[in-house]
Amino acid sequence: MKVDGKDMRPIWLKEDGQTVQVIDQRRLPHEFVVLDLTTVDDVIMAIQEMVVRGAPLIGVTAAYGVFVAALNANGRPDHTAFFLEECGRIKAARPTAINLIWGVERAMAAVGETSTGTSRIEAARNEAGCIAEEEAENCRLIGEHGVAIVEDISRKKNGATINILTHCNAGWLACIEYGTATAPMYAAFERGLDIHVWVDETRPLNQGARLTAWELGKHGIDHTIITDNAGGHLMQHNMVDLVIVGTDRTTHTGDVANKIGTYLKALAAHDNQVPFYVALPKNGVTDIPIEERDPDEVRYVQGLDQDVVKKVMISPEASRAANYAFDVTPARLVTGFITERGVCKASEEAIHTLFPEKAGFR
Amino acid sequence: MKVDGKDMRPIWLKEDGQTVQVIDQRRLPHEFVVLDLTTVDDVIMAIQEMVVRGAPLIGVTAAYGVFVAALNANGRPDHTAFFLEECGRIKAARPTAINLIWGVERAMAAVGETSTGTSRIEAARNEAGCIAEEEAENCRLIGEHGVAIVEDISRKKNGATINILTHCNAGWLACIEYGTATAPMYAAFERGLDIHVWVDETRPLNQGARLTAWELGKHGIDHTIITDNAGGHLMQHNMVDLVIVGTDRTTHTGDVANKIGTYLKALAAHDNQVPFYVALPKNGVTDIPIEERDPDEVRYVQGLDQDVVKKVMISPEASRAANYAFDVTPARLVTGFITERGVCKASEEAIHTLFPEKAGFR
Repeated sequence: MKVDGKDMRPIWLKEDGQTVQVIDQRRLPHEFVVLDLTTVDDVIMAIQEMVVRGAPLIGVTAAYGVFVAALNANGRPDHTAFFLEECGRIKAARPTAINLIWGVERAMAAVGETSTGTSRIEAARNEAGCIAEEEAENCRLIGEHGVAIVEDISRKKNGATINILTHCNAGWLACIEYGTATAPMYAAFERGLDIHVWVDETRPLNQGARLTAWELGKHGIDHTIITDNAGGHLMQHNMVDLVIVGTDRTTHTGDVANKIGTYLKALAAHDNQVPFYVALPKNGVTDIPIEERDPDEVRYVQGLDQDVVKKVMISPEASRAANYAFDVTPARLVTGFITERGVCKASEEAIHTLFPEKAGFR
Repeated sequence: MKVDGKDMRPIWLKEDGQTVQVIDQRRLPHEFVVLDLTTVDDVIMAIQEMVVRGAPLIGVTAAYGVFVAALNANGRPDHTAFFLEECGRIKAARPTAINLIWGVERAMAAVGETSTGTSRIEAARNEAGCIAEEEAENCRLIGEHGVAIVEDISRKKNGATINILTHCNAGWLACIEYGTATAPMYAAFERGLDIHVWVDETRPLNQGARLTAWELGKHGIDHTIITDNAGGHLMQHNMVDLVIVGTDRTTHTGDVANKIGTYLKALAAHDNQVPFYVALPKNGVTDIPIEERDPDEVRYVQGLDQDVVKKVMISPEASRAANYAFDVTPARLVTGFITERGVCKASEEAIHTLFPEKAGFR
């Protein structure tokens, strides 16, 4: 999407065709820093430290990681063993990131039995590029299907501003283009619909206040940052017309694992009859383990102090903190899923009607 | 309560009998700073800037503000006009703080027609002291009644750890002793019950992470800080036995205005059959306007960086923020009220049975 008028993606291959580059999302919104991923350690660090985050982007980064592994294996006497070992290390980088394993395996499958360094490199690079294009196209389609919901609300409101609430960042920074939750917003903006987005700050890492606000602002979409505590109050006062969130994983029965706090917004939407949609590409449907992350993410907050990005400690030195990363929103609280194939109810039957290829797998 | 083994209150009169002193709660938990309130401007600043906060403490501070006004009026030719004007300025300091007006009016009534400076000073000082003792005693009684709920859960759990979740700070820092929401926790701790408190950080001002965690830690109560997003997940996983919050105002029909985000926790408690109690002294029952505060409280977070307390900006410079300070939790989501007279259901009938003197007023 647009950043200061220029088209931008969160990951790309440099003109040399060798260097994978990513936006360092830890530094946004205060600093725009591009990192080179030239080793598998770089790739693992990028995934673990959340330089890149979001299921689709992690998948693409993982696939480019296989390309990096192929590059570095080239010319070594043990190139195949080394390549396989490096790919295994990427797969193990983060436990809940299903797209990580999927991205590595798909790029490895494309490489297949390719035995020479250059053909392995070529195959991995092509496959990573293909995955990136597919993700972008999926998100474009999510936008096409989701914008119909926004248009419908716009008609009911006689063209008055449509207020959309979102949690965390399921934007193009987490994907490749358009994002998932944000895709209907970008599509609505393109069509000239009058939208305004309530952006949950999304503690502990503030992906909403830092990333979603940055993306929407750079593209020119009107938005307001709120605390994670505020959404219920806004819904009680008819200040939210629609909630759209992304998902890290969704079960076959329609339960949605997403950034911690999503469940609370779903409860409030349900209590106030506000439509609550989850945007996801089909490979989001799977099972759900919950990751617990470093408590220091709760104890410290990052921000800008006199042009320097700093982390400040907000809690007493002696107090313990806990950091549950995701929660699960039960299907009964979900109005529907917005997918690249269309919109469906949050039920096993509806999901499997839209994605028959998923029906066999549990 | 205890701070490093010493008894402490958030407001007190210095040994000189003239100087009102308060803990500067903006600086906690990283710095312990005591401020002198020697002018009405000091008192207004303390209330507006949240040096002191919480309904009971604001009431006591307001009453001591009348004492400060009486002190400063003394010896002026226009002492009565000046005194009344200064009291009026205190009353106007913060729109939602009902205890502010109540505290000023009660101290003014005690002063009555007292026409000499010294008797006015004496009357205001005595009344402010009386209000402080009454608040402390009310909170002690809230603890006595509330601890029965904790003991009941302890029996059902065969003495296993009782996990209590609280939002914001309705502790002794907000009151005088014991607090309201924390009173049953302090009482349970005194009786040797095995409790653990989940402390919501409570954005934007982090009163939970900064103040509740500090109080509980200084008194020796086991606790863990969590993001405001996490409570729903914890309740889904049976990790919360009881929620206790305070309230800024509660209606006669049992609707509860409290720090923004309370409603979301009440929804989650209701969805998971977790008891949700609101602790309040009787003068909490009234009507509810909602205050909107400075958006910079959302955009900036305060914390410690290398021994210096700083505010860092977390959001993009160009993004707007909104800061709704309170929300209203409907009575249907409230299990009961814990008051100084006992525990009651969240209904008009039950409230008026316990507080018959409130029944006539709407």
